[in-house]
Amino acid sequence: MSIPTPYLLFLGDAPDALAAKVAQGIRDWRPEYAVGQFRLPGCQADMGLPDMSLTQARAAGARTLVIGVANRGGVIGTHWKKVLVQALEEGFDLASGLHTLLRDEEDLAAVARATGRRLHDVRVPSVRYPIADGVKRRGRRLLAVGTDCSVGKMYTALCMEREMRARGMSATFRATGQTGILITGDGVPLDAVIADFMAGSIEWLTPDNDADHWDLIEGQGSLFHVSYSGVTLALIHGGQPDALILSEEPTRTHMRGLPGYSLPSLEALRDMALAMARIANPACVVAGVSVNTKAMDESSARTHLAAVEDRMGLPATDPYRFGAGKLVDALAAL
Amino acid sequence: MSIPTPYLLFLGDAPDALAAKVAQGIRDWRPEYAVGQFRLPGCQADMGLPDMSLTQARAAGARTLVIGVANRGGVIGTHWKKVLVQALEEGFDLASGLHTLLRDEEDLAAVARATGRRLHDVRVPSVRYPIADGVKRRGRRLLAVGTDCSVGKMYTALCMEREMRARGMSATFRATGQTGILITGDGVPLDAVIADFMAGSIEWLTPDNDADHWDLIEGQGSLFHVSYSGVTLALIHGGQPDALILSEEPTRTHMRGLPGYSLPSLEALRDMALAMARIANPACVVAGVSVNTKAMDESSARTHLAAVEDRMGLPATDPYRFGAGKLVDALAAL
Repeated sequence: MSIPTPYLLFLGDAPDALAAKVAQGIRDWRPEYAVGQFRLPGCQADMGLPDMSLTQARAAGARTLVIGVANRGGVIGTHWKKVLVQALEEGFDLASGLHTLLRDEEDLAAVARATGRRLHDVRVPSVRYPIADGVKRRGRRLLAVGTDCSVGKMYTALCMEREMRARGMSATFRATGQTGILITGDGVPLDAVIADFMAGSIEWLTPDNDADHWDLIEGQGSLFHVSYSGVTLALIHGGQPDALILSEEPTRTHMRGLPGYSLPSLEALRDMALAMARIANPACVVAGVSVNTKAMDESSARTHLAAVEDRMGLPATDPYRFGAGKLVDALAAL
Repeated sequence: MSIPTPYLLFLGDAPDALAAKVAQGIRDWRPEYAVGQFRLPGCQADMGLPDMSLTQARAAGARTLVIGVANRGGVIGTHWKKVLVQALEEGFDLASGLHTLLRDEEDLAAVARATGRRLHDVRVPSVRYPIADGVKRRGRRLLAVGTDCSVGKMYTALCMEREMRARGMSATFRATGQTGILITGDGVPLDAVIADFMAGSIEWLTPDNDADHWDLIEGQGSLFHVSYSGVTLALIHGGQPDALILSEEPTRTHMRGLPGYSLPSLEALRDMALAMARIANPACVVAGVSVNTKAMDESSARTHLAAVEDRMGLPATDPYRFGAGKLVDALAAL
C-alpha cells in the first residue's frame, strides 16, 4: 500500500463536518501529513488548514490528493471528477476509501496510466498476504477489543501512540481499516481480506521489531458481534497481543445493527478475549479499560470511570477526553 | 453454485488412491451422483464404477465431469486438457476444486463460451453473500467443532446425515469446503469468502427451514488454530447451531502446521465453543463427541471412546468406524 505523503485533503462539497471525518482524522492524528485542504463551492467542512489550489499544494510538497469526504449515493460526480483528473495530471497520486473504487472509473484509470500516477483504493488489499504461521515475533503488541463495534478502538490506539511518543517510547499505530489506512498511509484493509489470509495479514502488518517497541494494532468488530466476530478473532490470533485494552461505549442499548443482541459485560469481554489471546500468546494480560464517554457529561463520565476502575481492578479512562496517560502507565509498568 | 448432477468422475492419471480422494468422497457419500469413472492410461485409482467414455457417460445421463483427482505441480497438463475440452464439446459442465482455476485456462474458457457450458471452480465464491444479520432462523442446525483442523468434522456431518436419513429424519449436509461442495454439488467455499461476509455466507447457506429439519454444517478449522480460527468463529456465529459435536484426533502431538502449539483438551474446546455459540443461540448444547480413531487399533479405539464418555458425560463414537447412531440418538433426544 504505502500512500506517498504529505497529502492535500480533498473536502469536495462536504455538506457538514461529519461527512469529512476521514480528513478530520488525518488532521487530528497526522497533522504533519496535511499541507492543505481543497474545497469546492458550498463546502461546509473546514479543517483549519490553508485552502490551496492543486498547483499551490504541489509546490508545497503534497504528493497525494486524499479524498477526505464521503460521497453521496456511491457515485463520483462530475464536479469531483474534474478535480481528480486534473490532480493526476498535476502529478498527484489519488487515495480513497470510498465504496466506489477509483480504479473502476474508466477515465481516472486511463489518466492514471497515461500519467504514471497511482490510484490507492484502500478498501481493496494490494498485497498477497501469507497464511498465518503463529511463530512468536520479537517486540510487543497491543490490541483494543470491544464489547461492540465502533466503540472507540481506533481512537484508543491513536491516543496511546501519541502519548507514548510524547514520552519517548517506541510505538507504531497499525491500521486495519480504511480510515486508519488513510490517516497513516499504510495498513491492512482487514474486512476485505479473504478468510484464509486474515490472521496472516496481521502477522504481516506487525512483523519482528525491537524488544521495547510497541505495535498498537487497530481493533475491528467484537468477539460478541455475530456479523464480524471472525475478523476480531483473526486480529487476536494474528496479532499475538502482549496486552489488551477493553473498550466500551456504556450508553449503547444493543449491539450495533443487531437489535436482538445485548452487549456483554466488561467482565465477559475480559474473560473471552483473554482466553482467546492466550492461545497465541500465553503471557497476554489485560492492561486497562478505554471508555467512550462522548454521550455523557463530564461528571457522569468521571463517576463511571471510577466505578469501572473499582469493579475491574484496572485503570480506566476516556483517552480522547481525559488523556491516555493511565493506559500508557500500565503498559510501561508491564 | 449448484453443479448439475449426476457426474462422470475424472480420475486422470492418479498415481494412487489418495490422489483421487475427492472422487472417493463422492463415491462414498453421493453414490447416486456417480454414473461412472473416466481414467487415463496409468491411472492407479479405481472407484469400482463402470469405466466410461464421454459419449457413454452422456448417454447414461451424466451432466458434469468432476475432476476427482489432485493435479501435480498446480498445472493442468495437455493430456488432461484434451479430455476436458472434449467434455465441454460433448455437453458436459466441468467442476473442479483445483488451485489452478478452470476459468484461468484460456482454451477451456473459450470452449466453454462457445459451447455454452459452465466451468464450476468451487474454490471461488459465485455468490454475493450478505453481511450477517444475526436474526434467529427456523429449523435446527448442528456444527462439528474440532480441537484442530482436519480431525474429521466433514465425515462426522456426512455420517450423521446418512444415519438420520436412514431413520427418516429430515437432515441436509451443508458443505463449506471444496471437497464437500464437489461431493454434494453445492455450498460455500468459506475459506475464500471475504472477511466481512463470512458469517453472512453461512446464514445464506442455512436459511429458514421446517421446525424438525436439521442442517448439518460442515466445520472448518478450529477456534484454537491461530491460522484459521476466525473462519471457525464465523461458522459458529453465522450457523447459530442448536447442537455442537466436539471432534478430535487423539494421537496428534501438535496443532496441524503449527509445531509450537499443543492441542486443547476436549473440556477446553467444549467451554470455549459453547460460550461462543451461545452468543448467537443461547439454547445451544453440546450433543456428543466424534473421535477420529483411524490411527488406533480397534481395541484401543473402544477403550479411548469409553474413557471419553466417562470423562465428558457425553456420547462418544468414531462415526465412520462405528456408526453415528449414538450422536443421532443424542440429537433425537434434544
